[in-house]
Amino acid sequence: MADTAERVAVERVNAAFYEAFENADLDLMRDLWLDHEESLCVHPGALPVRGTPAINRSWALIMANTPYIQFFLTDVEVSVRDEVASVTCTENVLTADDRAGPDGFGGARAVATNVFVRTPDGWRLWIHHASPVLSGPDHD
Amino acid sequence: MADTAERVAVERVNAAFYEAFENADLDLMRDLWLDHEESLCVHPGALPVRGTPAINRSWALIMANTPYIQFFLTDVEVSVRDEVASVTCTENVLTADDRAGPDGFGGARAVATNVFVRTPDGWRLWIHHASPVLSGPDHD
Repeated sequence: MADTAERVAVERVNAAFYEAFENADLDLMRDLWLDHEESLCVHPGALPVRGTPAINRSWALIMANTPYIQFFLTDVEVSVRDEVASVTCTENVLTADDRAGPDGFGGARAVATNVFVRTPDGWRLWIHHASPVLSGPDHD
Repeated sequence: MADTAERVAVERVNAAFYEAFENADLDLMRDLWLDHEESLCVHPGALPVRGTPAINRSWALIMANTPYIQFFLTDVEVSVRDEVASVTCTENVLTADDRAGPDGFGGARAVATNVFVRTPDGWRLWIHHASPVLSGPDHD
């Protein structure tokens, strides 16, 4: 569908999104999103958050409450259609886990669909939908 | 962004998707999807299913194992960008629940992001991502 350079560009913006989260870089996170009232963000297990101001607030809250988080992305699949691109990936998440004490870490797995739109400034995130994986690894 | 007629058309295809599921109409379900190797379907709590053949099989399996299902959609929000449209909605689900005996019903709630692409035959489903809602109704 799209050439390799396109896919690489989309994958790079997708990686930047997770770096912004890992580094609690709210400015970068804000820049990566499409500034629009119809932008959409679904955090794992949560109801949708719509529109730039609400999405920015949700990230500020999450970052403030996440002492440590690291993502290992697997099954990254990029699909580009003219002005819109999607990335699906499995988020293998390592977090500091308060329940396990100050030195404890927790692991979790989620699936994310990230949809980007092409803008004069590059690809911007229009939709982020992440959901917890409840089934085993052998699900179809 | 888009005129009302466009939004109504997208909302209608979105409704048809849930009707196909409710009626276990695999032919309609198949017709509603974009026939493409990069089509993407995330069932609640599951890993992604990619490509038309695998997606069709997943629906056949789900329909075969769902004696009764009914959807009450709320918070339906449509966003149209040229050739791509997204619908977010809360799926309030009523199912026959075997655990509650032959007359039992169960309820659940999920959030879905459905992304459609414009084709000569109308809007077709490119991405369906549904996730269980684990938090309370007052989440931001």
